[in-house]
Amino acid sequence: MPTPKHVAITNALREECRDLPVGSRLPAEKELATRFGVSRMTVRQALDALAAEGRVERAPGLGTFVRRPTVAMGPGLTSFTEDMRRRGLRPSSRLIALEQVAAPADVADDLGVPAGTPVMRLERLRFADDEPMCLEEGHLPIRFERLLEGADLEGSLHRILASAGVIVDSAGRRVRAAAAPSRDAQLLRLSTGAPALEIIDIFYDTNGRAVQRSHSRYRADRYEVMSDLHRRPAADLEPQ
Amino acid sequence: MPTPKHVAITNALREECRDLPVGSRLPAEKELATRFGVSRMTVRQALDALAAEGRVERAPGLGTFVRRPTVAMGPGLTSFTEDMRRRGLRPSSRLIALEQVAAPADVADDLGVPAGTPVMRLERLRFADDEPMCLEEGHLPIRFERLLEGADLEGSLHRILASAGVIVDSAGRRVRAAAAPSRDAQLLRLSTGAPALEIIDIFYDTNGRAVQRSHSRYRADRYEVMSDLHRRPAADLEPQ
Repeated sequence: MPTPKHVAITNALREECRDLPVGSRLPAEKELATRFGVSRMTVRQALDALAAEGRVERAPGLGTFVRRPTVAMGPGLTSFTEDMRRRGLRPSSRLIALEQVAAPADVADDLGVPAGTPVMRLERLRFADDEPMCLEEGHLPIRFERLLEGADLEGSLHRILASAGVIVDSAGRRVRAAAAPSRDAQLLRLSTGAPALEIIDIFYDTNGRAVQRSHSRYRADRYEVMSDLHRRPAADLEPQ
Repeated sequence: MPTPKHVAITNALREECRDLPVGSRLPAEKELATRFGVSRMTVRQALDALAAEGRVERAPGLGTFVRRPTVAMGPGLTSFTEDMRRRGLRPSSRLIALEQVAAPADVADDLGVPAGTPVMRLERLRFADDEPMCLEEGHLPIRFERLLEGADLEGSLHRILASAGVIVDSAGRRVRAAAAPSRDAQLLRLSTGAPALEIIDIFYDTNGRAVQRSHSRYRADRYEVMSDLHRRPAADLEPQ
């Protein structure tokens, strides 16, 4: 089946938006209709689709402006890669560090090892459409040293673990807001002190063993975390 | 059974800490031992308990300093009141506004009504130990108008709903980080632009009907959100 015209135009304009700075105005509907050789109605369909994706903002009477979609994480355990793809964004990563360190107290607590135990520390900067979204510092038990050293760490870490038979299937998450320290702000292209969304995840394998503790700092202007909540049977009925 | 000595001292010191500014130094162990007529060991037990609650920080050789505990929300559906009590904090609220408004588009979407539909808007400032923790803006369907107008809104809202047979038992949550706008910062006693933790909850009753949409801004230095994540069976196995 051939791609419908409005879908082809949506795809073409999505690619153009990736390369334009936020706030740029797209050409007028009439101009786009001429360029693509379609009706204004078809152009409008494409722009509506991009607006629904958060790629553009339509200001009636003023035009259509480029924006960047906010990425929602969750509500289940989803990966950075999945979250990005769901939003039509191209995920990528840059490895900053892989080294052996003595586990700091908070990391050790989360991994269930004594403080000072040797662990692997992995730092990566993660991108969406080549824009930095997240700075991630992960700690893993030392038993993964060889696996990590031989792996392509710019791809999916949990896929690497899966290749060694370790399936990550649950996590405990803490979410905070904090001002980005200057080094992190620089890497994320934020101004120092800009709010960042801080996420600490402890990932568990199917046997309930902690296999990674990750501390990530996300650009607050592009990222949000979703969750589904249910009142627990054990909880006292003293609601908000 | 009489209260053990170290518990009684923990309780007494907890009350003192509430009234002291963050960073204040508590009297030395020896002094506290004399004052309470117990051994230094017993004093140490009490200080350790307060440190575990996040009420004090012990700097070996320097002394014991007052801090404020961070409050964790979740992982299940818990109330502000529950979250605070779990941390030994006294919850309270101040009503800022109760009024009928036309539902803004985002609120209407979340409540499942057309934009512009009349809804009730409720704004409250919420405290822990008389310190502002959270500014909450809630929107509820207009059918709750009479119920809200006759109720004590400085207490639990969900308890008021429960009194009318409406049991809140699930929620969809979005969490973001954002700089606090100046009015909100002032109410929360933050500097303008300080990071705040923004939580948007849609609360559902036992029939799955949206009964409240709340937008809350929490002091980022005192609050974090916890959740438990599980990989959903339907999700593609393409982990982080």
